[in-house]
Amino acid sequence: MISFRPGVPDVDVFLFNAWHQAARRWDRLPKTMLGYGNFSGYAPFREQIAIYLKDARGVRCEPDQVLIVNGSQQALDLSARVLLDPGDSAFVEDPGYLGVKGALLGAGAKLIPLPIDDQGVAIAKASAHPESKLAYVTPSFQYPLGITMPLPRRLEWLAWAQSSPGWILEDDYDSQYRYAGAPLPALQGLDRHERVIYLGTFSKVMFPALRLGYMVVPRDLIKPFSQARALTDHHSPTIQQGVMAQFMAEGHFARHIRRMRALYKRRQAHLLTCCDRLLKGILKVRAAEAGMHVMAWLPNGWDDRAVSTHLARRGIEALAYSHFTLRRPKRGGLLLGYPALSEHRIEAGIRRMAEALRGFRPVQAR
Amino acid sequence: MISFRPGVPDVDVFLFNAWHQAARRWDRLPKTMLGYGNFSGYAPFREQIAIYLKDARGVRCEPDQVLIVNGSQQALDLSARVLLDPGDSAFVEDPGYLGVKGALLGAGAKLIPLPIDDQGVAIAKASAHPESKLAYVTPSFQYPLGITMPLPRRLEWLAWAQSSPGWILEDDYDSQYRYAGAPLPALQGLDRHERVIYLGTFSKVMFPALRLGYMVVPRDLIKPFSQARALTDHHSPTIQQGVMAQFMAEGHFARHIRRMRALYKRRQAHLLTCCDRLLKGILKVRAAEAGMHVMAWLPNGWDDRAVSTHLARRGIEALAYSHFTLRRPKRGGLLLGYPALSEHRIEAGIRRMAEALRGFRPVQAR
Repeated sequence: MISFRPGVPDVDVFLFNAWHQAARRWDRLPKTMLGYGNFSGYAPFREQIAIYLKDARGVRCEPDQVLIVNGSQQALDLSARVLLDPGDSAFVEDPGYLGVKGALLGAGAKLIPLPIDDQGVAIAKASAHPESKLAYVTPSFQYPLGITMPLPRRLEWLAWAQSSPGWILEDDYDSQYRYAGAPLPALQGLDRHERVIYLGTFSKVMFPALRLGYMVVPRDLIKPFSQARALTDHHSPTIQQGVMAQFMAEGHFARHIRRMRALYKRRQAHLLTCCDRLLKGILKVRAAEAGMHVMAWLPNGWDDRAVSTHLARRGIEALAYSHFTLRRPKRGGLLLGYPALSEHRIEAGIRRMAEALRGFRPVQAR
Repeated sequence: MISFRPGVPDVDVFLFNAWHQAARRWDRLPKTMLGYGNFSGYAPFREQIAIYLKDARGVRCEPDQVLIVNGSQQALDLSARVLLDPGDSAFVEDPGYLGVKGALLGAGAKLIPLPIDDQGVAIAKASAHPESKLAYVTPSFQYPLGITMPLPRRLEWLAWAQSSPGWILEDDYDSQYRYAGAPLPALQGLDRHERVIYLGTFSKVMFPALRLGYMVVPRDLIKPFSQARALTDHHSPTIQQGVMAQFMAEGHFARHIRRMRALYKRRQAHLLTCCDRLLKGILKVRAAEAGMHVMAWLPNGWDDRAVSTHLARRGIEALAYSHFTLRRPKRGGLLLGYPALSEHRIEAGIRRMAEALRGFRPVQAR
């Protein structure tokens, strides 16, 4: 199986020696770090994240606004539980990330899907739902369409948050990997009224099994989030936080991002070349400015789930675009993740995909 | 400050070398374990826990019924979310563990407190609430009173679970440390109708900052719990699960429990001796068969919160019994945890407590 699953980092290329050195110091289990820790996280780790987010993402915060979580899914779950009561409404992107829908529905929220236009999540319909308590947005790299929200739309959303009871939940999950264009700072950094909850994860840059992420919350929300965390699972494992803090403080994290960004950029370019050479006329693929996948559009009338199943039977994993939409999309597509694949594997995968799709008989979408 | 906080293990006496050896192998980050893992936990770890629970606690389960969680608080939180809808009723022990109340209230449950008699949590009033969906119980060592539930009461609770829509949530959290009497097997092991959810934690035997615990669920609940976990925070960190699995497989875990049990037994005996010598006529302290604290009862009319505050000002941390009750108790008391204190510190602490209480003027309880 050659998997084009999106969002999977290459764990074969990792700073193993640097990690090993950081980790082995903590294997001695410093006694002061074995008891119950701060619900919001290990202070030196929060400081490192605050520095990183300020430098790399334009996030404005003090370290005490940084809360350590077990990956971005926990940030979504805590946000839904802290900010929403059962029956409250929340805006979600359509298409959008599935995990947020699960977390919001789990908290009893009513989802209001907002469409994506060429500037990212549309705001036009927001005024029709003044009761909405939350807007989940991915301005850096809309998931899964890959649109970067331009400044005017960002300001519109901030104005919405200021004039409504709704919070903005900014998921900056793919922001580390930008290959073209100047990175726009996070919405959080533009916010002057403490209306944005910012979240990110180490799963994509380090590795998913680490289960560490972070959120940045307005001052008024530090205590409610910390208390909710206490009742959920107390706090993230302290030793792992210590290892990551050291890994960041010694510069390995920044070095690793730079290295992977260059590698993934080459891999995306290679994927585009292979698609152009082997799948022209079938898949319409355009370069993505950022992130860990590209969108590949199918010819009109092709059912993307049928294509995905057809490919899976032939040893290719490629997720259907319609899995990420609440309403049936006009056109089907595939999400092609490339970071975890060598150029050789990318080429072999696209070749196999081309052969498989030559034998595919499109059925009319039901 | 000398802290008699209950439930705190001695992290100075730990198998550091064994841990270090188990951990250092995993610092190399096996590549197959860096991606997203099984939501229910790392299979070899679940196997080790199933073996341990069968041998030590009489729990009857297959490894796939074992779910790894981030400590017992997450088991409580997941249970509340999976088993209860907002507005559902749940039995809790009064006095009882505070964390369970938080988790249940967080899920919108209505708490029905049940009193504790000399056989543990009373069942007499249960029939007046046939709508209750859950009964949280601590049969091994009732928290905080330390009562071990005898077999007849256990069977009554199982009969209740069989004839009602309610699940039993058995928190076996202090079960590793039993100093006297034959240990009774867990309720879960007596259950023939898959009505018991069993939970435990490594926080008390290993160290709290590890953030690992486990639950054993009936077959029908494996999938709902696993799905709820996926939406909460995916899964526990894989590397830590690998280290713990190895630590258990090599026999270090069992060895560590035996060693700590002997140590804590001596410390409890020393605490009782010191109380008898220095606090006679003020504190009424009796030996606890198990667990990590003893109950120390105050003279009639003494307000335990006032005593606790008075002691804190004089460098002694001792939690008031009334913090653990929903209704004001007839008699005040203190929870005296001893595992983390050397015999020398125990003696110094009780001496200081005796001096402080000599100067305490009891005020009438409001």
